[in-house]
Amino acid sequence: MNSACGKDNILINDWERIDDLQYKGLRIIQDTRSFCFGVDAVLLANFATVRKGDTVLDMGTGTGVIPLLIAGKTEAAKIIGLEIQPHLAEIAGRSVALNNLEDRVSIIEGDLQDGVSLFGASVFDVITCNPPYTQPKGGLINPNDSKAISRHEIKCTLEDVIRIASKLLKVGGKLAMVHRPERLVDIIWLMRYYKLEPKRLRFVHPSPGKKPNLILIEGVRGGNPQLNMLEPLYVYNDKGEYSEEINTIYCREKKDG
Amino acid sequence: MNSACGKDNILINDWERIDDLQYKGLRIIQDTRSFCFGVDAVLLANFATVRKGDTVLDMGTGTGVIPLLIAGKTEAAKIIGLEIQPHLAEIAGRSVALNNLEDRVSIIEGDLQDGVSLFGASVFDVITCNPPYTQPKGGLINPNDSKAISRHEIKCTLEDVIRIASKLLKVGGKLAMVHRPERLVDIIWLMRYYKLEPKRLRFVHPSPGKKPNLILIEGVRGGNPQLNMLEPLYVYNDKGEYSEEINTIYCREKKDG
Repeated sequence: MNSACGKDNILINDWERIDDLQYKGLRIIQDTRSFCFGVDAVLLANFATVRKGDTVLDMGTGTGVIPLLIAGKTEAAKIIGLEIQPHLAEIAGRSVALNNLEDRVSIIEGDLQDGVSLFGASVFDVITCNPPYTQPKGGLINPNDSKAISRHEIKCTLEDVIRIASKLLKVGGKLAMVHRPERLVDIIWLMRYYKLEPKRLRFVHPSPGKKPNLILIEGVRGGNPQLNMLEPLYVYNDKGEYSEEINTIYCREKKDG
Repeated sequence: MNSACGKDNILINDWERIDDLQYKGLRIIQDTRSFCFGVDAVLLANFATVRKGDTVLDMGTGTGVIPLLIAGKTEAAKIIGLEIQPHLAEIAGRSVALNNLEDRVSIIEGDLQDGVSLFGASVFDVITCNPPYTQPKGGLINPNDSKAISRHEIKCTLEDVIRIASKLLKVGGKLAMVHRPERLVDIIWLMRYYKLEPKRLRFVHPSPGKKPNLILIEGVRGGNPQLNMLEPLYVYNDKGEYSEEINTIYCREKKDG
């Protein structure tokens, strides 16, 4: 720790930087040596249906971007970020303090495989997850590499995420995920198998006319079948500029102060 | 029968009309009292992956639009249209003769529930189906009404279509369907359950930025998981004109002759 910022007791290391989340003045500490959050996490925080008073869990929270944004954007009563990598959980905890959100946001270092013993069954209204996207194929991945754990299904599979989320959610509770379109069939299959009926689906396209490169999907524990497909979300418009919606998601609070 | 057209032996009734399929001079007889084909059928015929020499079955062919278009657009060796409603099967048979396609296209009156006894198991390379979209709710539907049979799951459910298609397809054979987006979860679930892995998925939107109102999906019997999401298909462009792709699907052969 060698520089102080924000509050006297929040220090950052040489290999860290503080990013502006461009939302109500929220800031986040990023470890430049590890996986940094992307547009996926921001879109997921915006997509999840969080109501006043909800208890929310973010599985695999990394440096805590999703809990911070949900704290800023919603009236959730309690938001927990669960992270298996100790150094990321430690950074996330400092970001919570940096934003003075300790009363609503908690970061817990732990394995989502232990979710039920950590939190009990049927306790959350909403679970969010921006899971590793890639299935390991062969032995080229270093299982101790921090970026690899964030990107590849080393510590948990897609099935683990959905199975455990189903146990942790109340009946009627929601799992909101972001993932790659090529896993859509697996996600839909596993959600229905584990009684999390997919109810909302949105595709994210680089621009109009292009194939989607991300999906946002929300399943409801014990929900009835009937999928609501939302409008496509375009990151760029036809002119190559950020779309109006992306500007709204990222920047609208800047103008408010 | 009171008017002759095309060939001396093809007659049409007062309640029928002949539509130009706008493709290589193909024409189709439509019963104006029954369900007439829509853009869905045309898009499905264009979406299905049909190779030279393939044997194709269209389940619930109605007046035969999909077999006629596939005959015109592909080098399929044999295309069978199966239709449960006798008067529609009879019209479809006359349309086949009207287009001189008797050597490649056959219309069979029958129930897809009897598919395996009619054709045997594992015999088709491709199956297409534009099934009834609506699940009956309550007793308001007249089960003998021809339009109702085409629109509602009276004679067959979505599960029947997928289960029987899986039996009729060769390993590696493909089921191509068109349906409404709200049934996407059911379709994906049933396709994987019956070993027809969804491999290609395309959404049809009224125009850019609008929610999709149709899905085109292709499952491969015994295929490996890995979904290929295609570019969105827009019916209209931003100016409210038919999109270039729709014009190509409907009209390109007009210019060629």
